Amino acid sequence: MINNPKQSIGIGLIGLGVIAGQVVNVLIDKADVLAEQVGCPLVLRKVKVLPQDLSRPQAQAMDSQLFTTDADEFFATPGIDIVVEAIGGESPAVEYLSRALSDGKHVVTSNKEVIAKHGVELLTLAQQHGVGLRYEAAVGGGIPLISPFQRDLLANNISGIYAIINGTTNFILTRMARDGVDFASALNRAQELGYAEPNPRDDVEGIDATYKLAILASLAFHRQVRPEDIYREGISRLSSRDFQYARELGFAIKLLAIAKQSDESIEVRVHPVFIPEDSLLAKVDGVYNAILVEGDLVGKVLFFGEGAGALPTSSAVIADVVAAAQDVILGIGSKIRWGAQPGKGIKPMSEIKTRYYLRLNVADRPGVLAQIAKVLGDRLISISSVIQKLTDTAAQTAEIVIMTHPAQEKAMKQALEEVAQLTVVEEISNFIRVEE
Amino acid sequence: MINNPKQSIGIGLIGLGVIAGQVVNVLIDKADVLAEQVGCPLVLRKVKVLPQDLSRPQAQAMDSQLFTTDADEFFATPGIDIVVEAIGGESPAVEYLSRALSDGKHVVTSNKEVIAKHGVELLTLAQQHGVGLRYEAAVGGGIPLISPFQRDLLANNISGIYAIINGTTNFILTRMARDGVDFASALNRAQELGYAEPNPRDDVEGIDATYKLAILASLAFHRQVRPEDIYREGISRLSSRDFQYARELGFAIKLLAIAKQSDESIEVRVHPVFIPEDSLLAKVDGVYNAILVEGDLVGKVLFFGEGAGALPTSSAVIADVVAAAQDVILGIGSKIRWGAQPGKGIKPMSEIKTRYYLRLNVADRPGVLAQIAKVLGDRLISISSVIQKLTDTAAQTAEIVIMTHPAQEKAMKQALEEVAQLTVVEEISNFIRVEE
Repeated sequence: MINNPKQSIGIGLIGLGVIAGQVVNVLIDKADVLAEQVGCPLVLRKVKVLPQDLSRPQAQAMDSQLFTTDADEFFATPGIDIVVEAIGGESPAVEYLSRALSDGKHVVTSNKEVIAKHGVELLTLAQQHGVGLRYEAAVGGGIPLISPFQRDLLANNISGIYAIINGTTNFILTRMARDGVDFASALNRAQELGYAEPNPRDDVEGIDATYKLAILASLAFHRQVRPEDIYREGISRLSSRDFQYARELGFAIKLLAIAKQSDESIEVRVHPVFIPEDSLLAKVDGVYNAILVEGDLVGKVLFFGEGAGALPTSSAVIADVVAAAQDVILGIGSKIRWGAQPGKGIKPMSEIKTRYYLRLNVADRPGVLAQIAKVLGDRLISISSVIQKLTDTAAQTAEIVIMTHPAQEKAMKQALEEVAQLTVVEEISNFIRVEE
Repeated sequence: MINNPKQSIGIGLIGLGVIAGQVVNVLIDKADVLAEQVGCPLVLRKVKVLPQDLSRPQAQAMDSQLFTTDADEFFATPGIDIVVEAIGGESPAVEYLSRALSDGKHVVTSNKEVIAKHGVELLTLAQQHGVGLRYEAAVGGGIPLISPFQRDLLANNISGIYAIINGTTNFILTRMARDGVDFASALNRAQELGYAEPNPRDDVEGIDATYKLAILASLAFHRQVRPEDIYREGISRLSSRDFQYARELGFAIKLLAIAKQSDESIEVRVHPVFIPEDSLLAKVDGVYNAILVEGDLVGKVLFFGEGAGALPTSSAVIADVVAAAQDVILGIGSKIRWGAQPGKGIKPMSEIKTRYYLRLNVADRPGVLAQIAKVLGDRLISISSVIQKLTDTAAQTAEIVIMTHPAQEKAMKQALEEVAQLTVVEEISNFIRVEE
């Protein structure tokens, strides 16, 4: 159907880690199907590797002529139409992508950090050189997300995104909820199973989620949202008691990435939240991801699946490669535009308004609740429910859990400072926002 | 970025019902955003209507020159690049679509019946004339589904699709499950709320779902699956007792559209099923739709949203219009191919294998269960659990509920015939398959 002047489409691959290795597998195993989709074969012409990659069993099973450790040699390889980057991290990936685009090559990447931090510059570069920059695998692994935003939902004004987009933290939270274990023990199990890195900071502190949210929010709100624009809290402060109280109150605890319209600005934040236990997001367990999108036309749509892992990620990378190959054959750049235009402002965290869950350790004597309620009331924060439990008879302290009605973050923070100064309050044990 | 020789893209609209009316609204309300996406304005040039449409308030608010009741006049209108069909039903829609494609116009339709029955012919026609035929809105309303199958999941071997794709029946089943009401009462409520047609047959008998499954299965398995290839049972036989027992056994009852690889063939069927109550699909309530897809790379992905309604449907129609307009400007046809090639055979229903739920009305005396178990056992059908309840002391009958282990449909049907002939069996009250 497509009048194809090309005999083949050349692929250059940067990296030979787990994801890149799986991409190679698919290019080989599904060569026939992919050739049929594209109209000619996809041929792997060169793989840019690090010296240590060459000892991998997969590398040893491949033609050694395919490999180079030299970036200049890689970029000088003739016949590369599409560069696939799968090394991750900011540098040198961003330099490689810039160079590929400047050379007029279509680019496919699964690199969330580079797209979150440099997406606008790279997309501008792609447009200048008449090629496409695709990054479907950068958010949500194999779950179709970028393409639906760019294509299927484009007629919508997006009012909100509520996403579980980090499988590691969701696995940990699921274990804490189900098994009543504490954070350290759940993290340990995630590490044993290979779901968490030896240094888990990027996941458990929500950094990975801010990269992904920056990408989604930029697409949804047609403005550049940078990772540093996003308020961020991780999950390490959560204790098994929080899960116990959440359940009693009819909630689940999830690490949500939230981007939503709010008055004339947008809220962008990643932090643990209480969500109603009968909501769909509350049912998303283990390493699964789910992204709920609200639009003026489409209403609520939700995308669910495995947000990471070599196989799902390769599904998205290969889809991007095929789309890029079709564009190479048609001789067109990408049709996609991404808003670098100035958009709505980002609401300061102090101005957001939610309900709050508070867990306090207080002296076990009459009148304590009244003192706390007064501090909250003075800031116009009203209480919707209270659970009081005796926790330590020896220390004569009790645990109080308070759910508030919607209140402004600034007022809440000020109230908490005052509450902390009450002599009857031993400790503010936790403070979690509620999304309903 | 796109070098655009066109001043505008002309749209011809067939129909002015609820969906077409909403498409007009979006074209007007979002003209600026759409023009920016496309690179030039989208201009509505002609609307083919029925005489009665002209009395609609929306028609009276529009320029009367836009309307024609004459198909010849509609197709002779100059400057129509894209024809949008939103009248539904098989004829005359299929003739209009054929004519538009033969005239070299890109086509966008939300018509599931036409695509399910004539998709292959129409797509062939589109390819012959170098234009695109798009039908994202035909399945799942605004939920992105067709585009993900065609683009995002194309590297996958799809092993199964499990879909709640009829909002009317899901609303009825949700009411039956939650409120304990019978089918007639739940249907009545759905009709009052406008979720069910005065003649609800297409929805409640699963016909609408077979159209949608035919489209999805054709995309997933790269072969033509026709509606008549699909085994079909509706929901009218379900009683409130079935829901009560399902709950006791840990299941929900949903009308599922299933297409899955099974040995060397595929199973395609629409019928009520027991699904585990803790599965995601079991949580999909009311008029919402959800489509679970399993692929070799992507694992499980699920798409959820409103499967019908004018607003969500317009979201998908407009996305297709924008994509078609971009192709018009680039002067290219659609890149999408759809398998008219011979594919795997369809497994006869008699050969499928599932677990079964049986509800029987039997004489209330000893030895009855033994007789039934013997008939099942003779056909190698083993029982996993039994619930026995006294239901009618006067008539001296009892209700027995049996869950089986996996068994072949043919054996089960034969066993049920024999069971029905036992003198101790008053009635086989229901028989529902289980998917896990």
